[in-house]
Amino acid sequence: MNIKLTISYDGIKYHGFQKQPNVITIEEELNKAIEKTVKHKVKIYGAGRTDSGVHALGQVANFYSDTNITMENLPRVINYHLPEDISVIKAEVVPDDFHARFSAKGKHYRYIVFNGKHRNALYSCRAMHYNYPIEIERMEEAFEYLIGEHDYKTFMGRYAVVKDTIRRIDKITVKRKGQLIIVDFYGKSFLKNMIRIIMGTALEIGRGRLEPISMKESLESKKRISAGPTAPSYGLYLMDIYY
Amino acid sequence: MNIKLTISYDGIKYHGFQKQPNVITIEEELNKAIEKTVKHKVKIYGAGRTDSGVHALGQVANFYSDTNITMENLPRVINYHLPEDISVIKAEVVPDDFHARFSAKGKHYRYIVFNGKHRNALYSCRAMHYNYPIEIERMEEAFEYLIGEHDYKTFMGRYAVVKDTIRRIDKITVKRKGQLIIVDFYGKSFLKNMIRIIMGTALEIGRGRLEPISMKESLESKKRISAGPTAPSYGLYLMDIYY
Repeated sequence: MNIKLTISYDGIKYHGFQKQPNVITIEEELNKAIEKTVKHKVKIYGAGRTDSGVHALGQVANFYSDTNITMENLPRVINYHLPEDISVIKAEVVPDDFHARFSAKGKHYRYIVFNGKHRNALYSCRAMHYNYPIEIERMEEAFEYLIGEHDYKTFMGRYAVVKDTIRRIDKITVKRKGQLIIVDFYGKSFLKNMIRIIMGTALEIGRGRLEPISMKESLESKKRISAGPTAPSYGLYLMDIYY
Repeated sequence: MNIKLTISYDGIKYHGFQKQPNVITIEEELNKAIEKTVKHKVKIYGAGRTDSGVHALGQVANFYSDTNITMENLPRVINYHLPEDISVIKAEVVPDDFHARFSAKGKHYRYIVFNGKHRNALYSCRAMHYNYPIEIERMEEAFEYLIGEHDYKTFMGRYAVVKDTIRRIDKITVKRKGQLIIVDFYGKSFLKNMIRIIMGTALEIGRGRLEPISMKESLESKKRISAGPTAPSYGLYLMDIYY
């Protein structure tokens, strides 16, 4: 049977989700833990290749196994073999043709900014520290220019290896919650570093160094240099994947 | 001048706040960072001796110095010398007779429970995982018996070295927020492990293993054995100290 797992992790110690030689990845840890659980080799299909340091509350992966363990108990058994900073929060049997990546209809990412004057230890590695005053209305205005289907080449990290840089963003929301600024991104899929570069640009706009319209100009220029810096990975969370 | 600092930390790697021989404590790290900042020896007066593993968003300490650094800049300079998991979030000049511990009028602690079936990596070391269904109304009822001035000997950790076990709890509130249960404790001061033992007992009540009235019986028995287990330190946060 085809088993879908929902996974959460603190990404700070890992080189992203996807398995790579010579570095520790979430997928590798997960693979080892699943194999110890079901007692045979498995191939894991992950939904999103989160960057090094990025967290997840709703990463998804699937694998095939005829284990006798119930879906209710499976997360607990896999979790027993996982390090503290990775956990399976749900297991479900899905149709054989379900593929965590190719069946996905959309994704929800969240970026968290700690907008206090001085850094706060409890948000270290869990939110980006940004100490300039921010007007979130300016960020909201800038995000409007990004909604819809566009060529987001501007906001793609160097060394990314895709040719088609057209993507669709359905919605971006910004809210302030105490000293936190929480930005939610919803879309079909995103380019490498795309949300982090958009956030780096939006914060420059929020603090008044750039005007909201510059987001549009930057998008249209298709030049990475026209955008702001890449916001740090540890402020980003993969929240949910829609099927 | 007498300088009051407000401090946040992730307590997981430390043996509590107060300096002790042969182990790493928050106070020791803070002391070193302040001395590097003001360039002379200082004696730090801390407000609360949080246990090993306990976090803080509003720990307070004071020390005397005639530094030229402004109070606005002081946190940043001290933070430069502190590890990522400790930070000064505010510095103020206070009257000479202010003492972080003896001037305190009250404290606010928060206990966070992650009440999901399976553990969640992003709450590991930040909340207690409790996977039984909880009725928070039962916890609320039990907490009522603890409000006011009482002898809380029942809820004191072994090896505590105080003689007077009478304390006053002003208020306890419980709320559910998604899969989290957030319990706020307000009082003049608390015994060693007191909140953690109260929480361990309240969760047994919340899940239905004990009746709410058992909190009262336990309090009156003055016997540690009548109460529940000690909830883990990493679910506890020192939120605020009132002066």
